[in-house]
Amino acid sequence: MTVVVIGLGLIGGSIGKGLIESGLAAHVVGVDRDRAACRIAQQRGCVQSIATDLAQVDGAHLWVLAVPPFAVASLLPRVAEVAAPHAVVTDTCSVKTPIHDAVPEGLRARFVGGHPMAGHQASGIMYARSDLFRNAYWVLCPNEQNRERDVRRVESLVYAMDARPICMSSETHDANVALLSHVPHVLASLLAAMGDQAGCAGIAGGSWRDLTRVAASDPALWEQIIRSNRVAIAGVISEIVERLGELRDALTEDDAAAVSAFLRTGHLAKQRQILGSEGRPEA
Amino acid sequence: MTVVVIGLGLIGGSIGKGLIESGLAAHVVGVDRDRAACRIAQQRGCVQSIATDLAQVDGAHLWVLAVPPFAVASLLPRVAEVAAPHAVVTDTCSVKTPIHDAVPEGLRARFVGGHPMAGHQASGIMYARSDLFRNAYWVLCPNEQNRERDVRRVESLVYAMDARPICMSSETHDANVALLSHVPHVLASLLAAMGDQAGCAGIAGGSWRDLTRVAASDPALWEQIIRSNRVAIAGVISEIVERLGELRDALTEDDAAAVSAFLRTGHLAKQRQILGSEGRPEA
Repeated sequence: MTVVVIGLGLIGGSIGKGLIESGLAAHVVGVDRDRAACRIAQQRGCVQSIATDLAQVDGAHLWVLAVPPFAVASLLPRVAEVAAPHAVVTDTCSVKTPIHDAVPEGLRARFVGGHPMAGHQASGIMYARSDLFRNAYWVLCPNEQNRERDVRRVESLVYAMDARPICMSSETHDANVALLSHVPHVLASLLAAMGDQAGCAGIAGGSWRDLTRVAASDPALWEQIIRSNRVAIAGVISEIVERLGELRDALTEDDAAAVSAFLRTGHLAKQRQILGSEGRPEA
Repeated sequence: MTVVVIGLGLIGGSIGKGLIESGLAAHVVGVDRDRAACRIAQQRGCVQSIATDLAQVDGAHLWVLAVPPFAVASLLPRVAEVAAPHAVVTDTCSVKTPIHDAVPEGLRARFVGGHPMAGHQASGIMYARSDLFRNAYWVLCPNEQNRERDVRRVESLVYAMDARPICMSSETHDANVALLSHVPHVLASLLAAMGDQAGCAGIAGGSWRDLTRVAASDPALWEQIIRSNRVAIAGVISEIVERLGELRDALTEDDAAAVSAFLRTGHLAKQRQILGSEGRPEA
């Protein structure tokens, strides 16, 4: 099949490269306003041709919108105009409810939102690699109008990346990623800033580097992601603030039992996560 | 020189192994209540002999107390009784003020507190490796009674581990590690617990695994560490609670400028940390 990838950054480039190397796509067309990114994408085998206008893309079976949330929302009406009637459209944004709400009615039946649960703090086509998503979950959020065969077409993309498709509602997805991705990003940014202001980050060990790693990600992209999921994130932050306040009180009173319970709960939880026995999330 | 290592876990075992492999110690004596740990330490080349009573240790030049904070405090009076007059004593605890306060007056001139800024979530002698501390900072907290040559003896241990000694006061150390190590540990535990309770941790990507990694550490050890530094940790938690509250308010109001400033500050801070230009901490 022919696939159009709009947005030739780390994610779009890696998808294009994976599609070509897996043989799933007979032809991958790339679209990006950045001409240098287009050139590099062709050189690195992430796309086979470039289109400068969406109207040039004819007869594609699958459209992949690999651009930030606000850009997906503004691209969707144009894609609805030019996509062939048989085409299926997906995206890769880490928020799904706002995207779902932005899909034009005429495109809704053919739009299957997606989110690969992998990435890297480095961004840009130069870092694209066909194994970026290997073994990662890739959330799909079908809507009530989607046909089974169209969802399967997007799943075939996921399998071509050696990733694991998992379906859930947009709302469940957004609540999950607030906790699993967006708030960790917020904490990484906050701690990196506090370490910088205290002037002591230079002596830190590995746990600090791990914890603050994602703070190096593109802040313009993350501003869009975090604002797009701001209600769920604010809810998780409220819970963290409350639980941290309780721990602080326990520390102030030197309440050994409370400190012990706090650490043991986290330890058991992490053990379960390492063993992979916590089960799949509710769909 | 002859070195006694008390506590044959990950840290003590790695120090013993590094001392033997570097050739700094002519003889390394191990002490641990756990006989299995003693046997494994000998088999793995972490110590050359075992002592079952501190009184058996004769003429050692350096004592390394590689046990949790509360155990160091209770061992110090006995070490003061049996250590030879020329012996220097150090420890590896990640809190320094309570240890400093627990040093008996007769031992004070010969005690130089230390803390290697490296480790691993796995604990126990089975994980001991001579390169555990390579390139890590190793904080030393000399007191006003220490002689230069005794501090140098502990520094020679640090260099034998391929680590980097850095001197600072106990108070500065404890404030720094509250931010760089103890609070990250608290956040890892909290998030691991929240992900477990929400039942969604299974789909998480790499940033979540990185962030929660240290939650797998021994909770009994960490209860001692965190309670020993509870005032500094409570202070850092208060600052985090305040800053997170501000961000939550900005999200609730969809204040784009505030969200952007928050992420950009963290991004710049992390860039500086990656480039290593944030400078050494104040001593």
